[in-house]
Amino acid sequence: MKIRLATNNPHKLAEVSQILAPFGVEVERLDAEKVEIQHDDVEAVARRAAELLCSRYGDYVAVEDTGLYIEALGGFPGPYAEYVYRTIGLGGVLKLLKGVANRRALFKCAVAICIGGRVEVFTGEARGYIANEPRGRGGFGYDPIFIPDGMSQTFAELGEEVKNKISHRARAFSALGAWLTKKNLFK
Amino acid sequence: MKIRLATNNPHKLAEVSQILAPFGVEVERLDAEKVEIQHDDVEAVARRAAELLCSRYGDYVAVEDTGLYIEALGGFPGPYAEYVYRTIGLGGVLKLLKGVANRRALFKCAVAICIGGRVEVFTGEARGYIANEPRGRGGFGYDPIFIPDGMSQTFAELGEEVKNKISHRARAFSALGAWLTKKNLFK
Repeated sequence: MKIRLATNNPHKLAEVSQILAPFGVEVERLDAEKVEIQHDDVEAVARRAAELLCSRYGDYVAVEDTGLYIEALGGFPGPYAEYVYRTIGLGGVLKLLKGVANRRALFKCAVAICIGGRVEVFTGEARGYIANEPRGRGGFGYDPIFIPDGMSQTFAELGEEVKNKISHRARAFSALGAWLTKKNLFK
Repeated sequence: MKIRLATNNPHKLAEVSQILAPFGVEVERLDAEKVEIQHDDVEAVARRAAELLCSRYGDYVAVEDTGLYIEALGGFPGPYAEYVYRTIGLGGVLKLLKGVANRRALFKCAVAICIGGRVEVFTGEARGYIANEPRGRGGFGYDPIFIPDGMSQTFAELGEEVKNKISHRARAFSALGAWLTKKNLFK
């Protein structure tokens, strides 16, 4: 089985491919303009983006959206994590948290897929906290500053094998993979 | 003449009404869901939002979007100024600029209006810099920390009469007002 993921981020494409491989699902990049609405919840962003792509590109097209919600910052950067990464970067986020004791954070990933003209959405979360400084060379985006609960290392230090078992993205895409497998078995 | 502005912000509605009054244009609030896309340029955000509203609400419906682009922060918060205000607030923006010498900033406002099934967009800019601390009680949003070029006071200190002559919003809506007046004369 094959899905087409609308993304311009090669790191995401590689990560999602690895997560879905055990389910026998191949991932191909769809080169399409992804329209994202401004909404605090990534689930709404992914759903709407998929609705707009479904009508044009048909079934098995998927869209992913990820947000990082930092408790002490009122949920910032939330669904605008990518924009914030591009502008103020990890340094800016760490500066905002300077002297702040509460470093709790939540990663949320939503994947929306078009099937039979409908949109199905799967989500995954990872809870943890923001490190005092960037650590590790693996992963991408906020991975060097996010330490998942129960661990002492950042996603970037833990490496892809561990990250792709416990991350928000792993959870969302594994739910999708399991659903596709089940759907395929009974059709 | 009357236009309907899709906004939930009473401050914006009042400000726009004052700016358009000299052009003989009344402003009424349109209670409609405004869909904003994620895009670095407010012009694209306003245009798309208007396109979606035009088909449903018809002519003389207007949508406004404003961004604040801070040079030293790579353009942050840009089109997400409202979200950033709601989460990290003015305190967060000032913390990001702590110890930063370059405080140059640009306000950009875009207003898109539906006329005869088409969307026209007018923009206005205000250049200036970010104050060291919030000052003044007038205005709303970032007004207490924005000092326009050529002034020593923030928009919040200058008060609405001055602000509504020189602000980004004044420039965008005055362009719209002049265009509507001219259009009306020759029709």
